[in-house]
Amino acid sequence: MVRIAPSILSADFKNLEKDIKELENNNIEVIHIDVMDGSFVPNISFGFPVIEALRPITKMTFDVHLMIENPSKFVEDFYKAGADILTVHYEAERHLDRTIDYIKSFGMKAGVSLNPATPVSSIKHLIPKLDLVLIMSVNPGFGGQKYIEYCSDKIREVKELSDKYNKDLLIQVDGGVNSDTIKKVASCGANLLVAGSGVFKNGEIKKNIDELMEKLA
Amino acid sequence: MVRIAPSILSADFKNLEKDIKELENNNIEVIHIDVMDGSFVPNISFGFPVIEALRPITKMTFDVHLMIENPSKFVEDFYKAGADILTVHYEAERHLDRTIDYIKSFGMKAGVSLNPATPVSSIKHLIPKLDLVLIMSVNPGFGGQKYIEYCSDKIREVKELSDKYNKDLLIQVDGGVNSDTIKKVASCGANLLVAGSGVFKNGEIKKNIDELMEKLA
Amino acid sequence: MVRIAPSILSADFKNLEKDIKELENNNIEVIHIDVMDGSFVPNISFGFPVIEALRPITKMTFDVHLMIENPSKFVEDFYKAGADILTVHYEAERHLDRTIDYIKSFGMKAGVSLNPATPVSSIKHLIPKLDLVLIMSVNPGFGGQKYIEYCSDKIREVKELSDKYNKDLLIQVDGGVNSDTIKKVASCGANLLVAGSGVFKNGEIKKNIDELMEKLA
Amino acid sequence: MVRIAPSILSADFKNLEKDIKELENNNIEVIHIDVMDGSFVPNISFGFPVIEALRPITKMTFDVHLMIENPSKFVEDFYKAGADILTVHYEAERHLDRTIDYIKSFGMKAGVSLNPATPVSSIKHLIPKLDLVLIMSVNPGFGGQKYIEYCSDKIREVKELSDKYNKDLLIQVDGGVNSDTIKKVASCGANLLVAGSGVFKNGEIKKNIDELMEKLA
Amino acid sequence: MVRIAPSILSADFKNLEKDIKELENNNIEVIHIDVMDGSFVPNISFGFPVIEALRPITKMTFDVHLMIENPSKFVEDFYKAGADILTVHYEAERHLDRTIDYIKSFGMKAGVSLNPATPVSSIKHLIPKLDLVLIMSVNPGFGGQKYIEYCSDKIREVKELSDKYNKDLLIQVDGGVNSDTIKKVASCGANLLVAGSGVFKNGEIKKNIDELMEKLA
Amino acid sequence: MVRIAPSILSADFKNLEKDIKELENNNIEVIHIDVMDGSFVPNISFGFPVIEALRPITKMTFDVHLMIENPSKFVEDFYKAGADILTVHYEAERHLDRTIDYIKSFGMKAGVSLNPATPVSSIKHLIPKLDLVLIMSVNPGFGGQKYIEYCSDKIREVKELSDKYNKDLLIQVDGGVNSDTIKKVASCGANLLVAGSGVFKNGEIKKNIDELMEKLA
Repeated sequence: MVRIAPSILSADFKNLEKDIKELENNNIEVIHIDVMDGSFVPNISFGFPVIEALRPITKMTFDVHLMIENPSKFVEDFYKAGADILTVHYEAERHLDRTIDYIKSFGMKAGVSLNPATPVSSIKHLIPKLDLVLIMSVNPGFGGQKYIEYCSDKIREVKELSDKYNKDLLIQVDGGVNSDTIKKVASCGANLLVAGSGVFKNGEIKKNIDELMEKLA
Repeated sequence: MVRIAPSILSADFKNLEKDIKELENNNIEVIHIDVMDGSFVPNISFGFPVIEALRPITKMTFDVHLMIENPSKFVEDFYKAGADILTVHYEAERHLDRTIDYIKSFGMKAGVSLNPATPVSSIKHLIPKLDLVLIMSVNPGFGGQKYIEYCSDKIREVKELSDKYNKDLLIQVDGGVNSDTIKKVASCGANLLVAGSGVFKNGEIKKNIDELMEKLA
Repeated sequence: MVRIAPSILSADFKNLEKDIKELENNNIEVIHIDVMDGSFVPNISFGFPVIEALRPITKMTFDVHLMIENPSKFVEDFYKAGADILTVHYEAERHLDRTIDYIKSFGMKAGVSLNPATPVSSIKHLIPKLDLVLIMSVNPGFGGQKYIEYCSDKIREVKELSDKYNKDLLIQVDGGVNSDTIKKVASCGANLLVAGSGVFKNGEIKKNIDELMEKLA
Repeated sequence: MVRIAPSILSADFKNLEKDIKELENNNIEVIHIDVMDGSFVPNISFGFPVIEALRPITKMTFDVHLMIENPSKFVEDFYKAGADILTVHYEAERHLDRTIDYIKSFGMKAGVSLNPATPVSSIKHLIPKLDLVLIMSVNPGFGGQKYIEYCSDKIREVKELSDKYNKDLLIQVDGGVNSDTIKKVASCGANLLVAGSGVFKNGEIKKNIDELMEKLA
Repeated sequence: MVRIAPSILSADFKNLEKDIKELENNNIEVIHIDVMDGSFVPNISFGFPVIEALRPITKMTFDVHLMIENPSKFVEDFYKAGADILTVHYEAERHLDRTIDYIKSFGMKAGVSLNPATPVSSIKHLIPKLDLVLIMSVNPGFGGQKYIEYCSDKIREVKELSDKYNKDLLIQVDGGVNSDTIKKVASCGANLLVAGSGVFKNGEIKKNIDELMEKLA
Repeated sequence: MVRIAPSILSADFKNLEKDIKELENNNIEVIHIDVMDGSFVPNISFGFPVIEALRPITKMTFDVHLMIENPSKFVEDFYKAGADILTVHYEAERHLDRTIDYIKSFGMKAGVSLNPATPVSSIKHLIPKLDLVLIMSVNPGFGGQKYIEYCSDKIREVKELSDKYNKDLLIQVDGGVNSDTIKKVASCGANLLVAGSGVFKNGEIKKNIDELMEKLA
C-alpha cells in the first residue's frame, strides 16, 4: 500500500491545528516533520516547540526527518517531544549502526535518509535492520527544485533490496512529489510519499489529497 | 518607557495567529522571537517558516534573537522573512563590528546579546553604534532556570554606558522576568523586558500582561 | 583530443603575466588553478587576487580546482573572479548534486574531484550531469609525491562511464603527470592532463610543452 | 595463523605492568591499544602517557587503534611513544592514501578501520598497500554491545580481497569477540582478534586466554 | 592553608596503585587529574578508564582538570567515574554559568581554568559562585615550559577577588610549580598547588613532597 | 619613527616583481602580507607560493598577517617561506601565549592582531612580550570599508601600554589608512601603518608614497 505523508513545512504555521485536523479528516495517517538546523542544510525550519504543540491533538504518526548535525545528540529529546519515526542523514552521522539501535531503544522506528548524489550501496549493510529508507529526490534545505530523475534508479534499487532482505521496509521519497510525478515515484517502489505544496497549495487540502490519491489509484 | 516583549516561544504553537491577535489587543508592540539551532544552544526552536507565517498578519515589531552559529550567514534571510530587529550573540560571532553594520545595511536595528557570564566590557567599543543590547539573565537554550542575580549589575553597567554614549539604546533583558522580578529588572535600567510564561501562562494573556504592567507601574 | 592544462601553482609567481603569455604562445587553451585553504588541505596557495589579476590578460579557459572547505559558499565569488570551470572535492561537499547545479547556474562548467582513495562509484549518479571529473593521482596539498599507480584503474573506470553516459565529459588527471607518465595516463582515457613542474621546470616552458606533446603524440 | 590481541582497555589500569607481564607469560605477541578522544567517539580512553609507560617493559607489538579526529596530526607522536602498528578510521580521515604512506614512512605498519555500517568497498583501492584492515564489529566507543552479525560478511569480503591482492594483510576484528564468537569470526577469515573482557574478565588472564585458544583450535 | 595537589600525569602509569598509596602515606589529600583530548590541547592524556580504576582504592579528592572540547557533554560521565572537583576551561565553554551550575547539581565542586593570556576579568561575574579558579602558569598540553612570571599578577588578582567575594575559593596554580617557585606562588595567594615532576621525579615521592612542604613552611 | 607598510594585496599580482622593486626604490622597508583562508575571514587571498616567490628578490621585512584558523599549525611553514614578522589573530588562537613563544623560537618577531570590536584589555598580559600589536581599523577580509573611528581609542590605549611596558613595541594599524587619515592615525601612536590602495592606486607608487609621507611629516 502506498501512503502520502504531508510535509508540515508547507502547512499554515499560524494555524497548524486547523491543518492537522483537516489532514485527519482526509484519512492521512502519517505527517512528515522536517527539522532543519541551518548547518547541515542552509535553512532553519523548526524543532521541539512545534512537535510538542501538535502531539496532544492528534494520533497521526509523527515521521520526523532530521536534517541536522549530530542527530544522535537529540534522539531522546525527539522521543519525548513525540516522534514515532526518526530519520537521520547518512551524511550527518558517522556511527550510523549505533544511532539506528539507539533510536529503536526508545521504541521509535528508525530511518536513514540519503542525499540525491549518495549511492544506495553506502547503507547496504543496514537495510535489514532499518524501518525506513528516505530517498531525497531534491537537495534538502534548498528551495525551488524539481524531482531529480536519476533518483528513480535509487528507489528501484532500494525496492530490490527490500524485496530480498526486509519486506516491511518503508521506502520514502521526498522532493518534487506532486500530481505529475506521484504515479512514477510509486511505480518505482516507494510506499511512503512526502508531499508538501502538493497537499497544502491554495489551502485546498481535501481537493489536493483527492487529486494525488486519484493519480495513485 | 519600559515595554514588555512577549517571547513567542511560550505561545501556543498550534494556534499562533490567535495569540498574536491577543497580544495586539493588549497593546503589545514588540514580540521576541527566539531562534535556536541545536548547536549554539542545545535546543532547536524554529526559524523562517514561523516568522514568514506571522509577518503578514501583524505590524508588531519582530525582535529576532539569534541563538545560532554563524549568524551573519542568515542576515539577509531574516530580513526577507520579516525581522525588524536582529540580535546576534557575542559568543557566536568573531566579526561583530561588521555584522552590526551588515544588519543595519538592510534597515534593521542591530543588537548584541551577552551570555550571563560574559562581561559587558567585551562589547564596550560597540555601545555607541548598537540599537540594542540583550543581557541574558538565564543561560540561553537550557530549561528550568531562574533570574541570575548578578545580571542586575550588568544591566546597570549597560545603563550607565547608554546614558553616556547612546541614549536611545534598547536595553533588553531575557530570562526569569516575571511578576516577582520585573520591577527590579526595570529599576536597574532595562527598557525592553522579554517575558515568556509570564505572559502566556494558563493561556490568560490579558490577565498576565495586566499583572506585569501593574508591577511595572 | 588530449590537452595539457598547466598548473599555475608551478609558474613564476612574481612574474605571472610573462608565464601566461608564454603559455598562450604555445597554444595552451586551459590553465589549471589550484586553490588551497590550509584546512581541506595542509597548504594555502592562493585565491581571488591572483585569478582577478590574470583574467583581463588572457582568454584561456580558467579551470579552477577548489581544495577548500565549504566550496559552495564561494561559487559566486569565483564566477566573478573569472572562473570558467569550477571543480569541487567530493570529500568537501555534502550537497554535491546541488552544488553542481549551482555552479552551472552561473554558466560555468562543473567538475567533481576525487582524492586518490575515493572510489569512482561514490559519484556514479552524477556522471551524466558533470562537465568534468578530476582524478587526483597524488594526495592534494602534500608535497613530493609520485603518480599513484592504482589511479589508472580509476581513470579507466571514469572513461567507461563517460563512454556510456556522457561522451563530452572532461576526464582530468592531476598529480605526477610528466614526460614519463603522460602517455600512460592519456591511454587510460584522460583527456585533460594537469602538469605543473612538467611544464614550468627550469623556466623552459616551450621546451617542456613540446616534450610533453611529443610523448602524447 | 590466528592470533589474539588483548585490548588493554580492559586491563587493570592501576597495575598495568602486572597485566602486561602476564600477557607475555601467556605468549601473547600483540596488544591492542584503544585511543579515544571524546570527539570521534563519545569516550575518552587514554593516549601517550600510557603507551610511553608500557613501551620500556615489553617487546610485544603495540597495535594502536586511533578512534580520534585528525589522526594524521599525531602520527609522529605515536611513533615516538612506541607504536608498531597505527590504525586510523576511514570515517575520520579524508586524505587516507597519504596518511597510510605517512605512517609507513616511520617504519610502522599502517591500518584502516571501518565502522560497522561502512562498506568494505570504500577502501578497495587501498587494500594492496595496507598492512591491516580492522573490521569493527561493534560501534567504537559505545558500551554494552554484542558482535554485529552482518560484520561477518565484511570479514569474508576483506578475506577475499586479501587472497587476491595482499596475502600478508592482517585482518583484524574488534567487538564482541569472546569464547562464543571467536571460532565463527576466525572462520570468516580474520587473523588478528581483539578481545577485551574475554581476556581480562575476573582477572583470570591465563584461564581466559586458554579458553579462547581452545575454541580457536 | 596551602596544599599540594600532585598531578597524576607525572606518576608511573604502569603502577599507579603504588604511587597512589605513597601519596596517601605522605598525607596528600588532593590528586590533580589532567584530562587532555588532543583537540583543545595538542596532547591526549587519559580519561575515564584511569579515573575509574583509581576511585575504589583511595579516598583522596579527585580534582579533575578538563582540557577538552565540549566539557559539559561529559559532566555526568566524570561524576560517575569518581570526580570530586571538575574544572573546565574558560576558552572551551560558551555557556559557562550553566556548566558551573550543572557540575554542582551532581554534588561536585566546580572550577574554571584560565589559559595564561586570558585575563581574570573574563570570569569576574562567576567568582562568587565558583569553588575553584585554576590559573594556568604554563600553556596547557605543551611540553617543556617554565612558570610564566606574569601569572603571579593573575594569582594576586584572584586572591583579591576571593577576599572580597568568596573567602572559600580554592585558588589553584598549575605549571612550573617546583621547589624554586612554590614559595613565591603561595605568597601570591594560591592555596592549591599542582606539582608534577616536582612530586614524582626520580620516583622519590616522599623526599620530593618533604622538600616542597619545607619550602612552603 | 613612523613607517608605511604597503599591503601587497593591492599590488599588481601579475607583475609582483616590478611592484616590489618600486617599493624598494622608494625606501619602503616593510611589506605587509595578508594571508586569508576563506574560513577565519570570507576571502581567500594567498599563502606560501607568493611569499616564496618574493623572498629571493628583496631584503624588505616580510610582515605576515595571518587571517586564518589554527595559525600555530603553520608557523614553521611561514618561517621557511620567508616571514620576518608573524602576526596571529586573538580571535583565532586559544593558546596565544604559547603561539607567541613558538613564533619567537624561530627568530621571527611575533604579533597579535585584534578585530575592531575586540578590546585591547584582552591581551594586556602579553603586551610586554609582544613585538607587534595590530589594531584592525576595518573588519578583516570584507571589502569596501572605511577607517573605524573608535579604533583611534584603541591605538591610544596600546600606545599607553607600550610607553609603560614595552617601548619597542610596533603599533600597527590596518584599514582605511590613506592620505586623509594617516596623520590622525599616526598621532594616536601608531608607528607602522599599513596602506593598500593608498600606495598602489593608479599604479603610481612613487607619487602615492610621496603624498602619504608628506601628510605624515
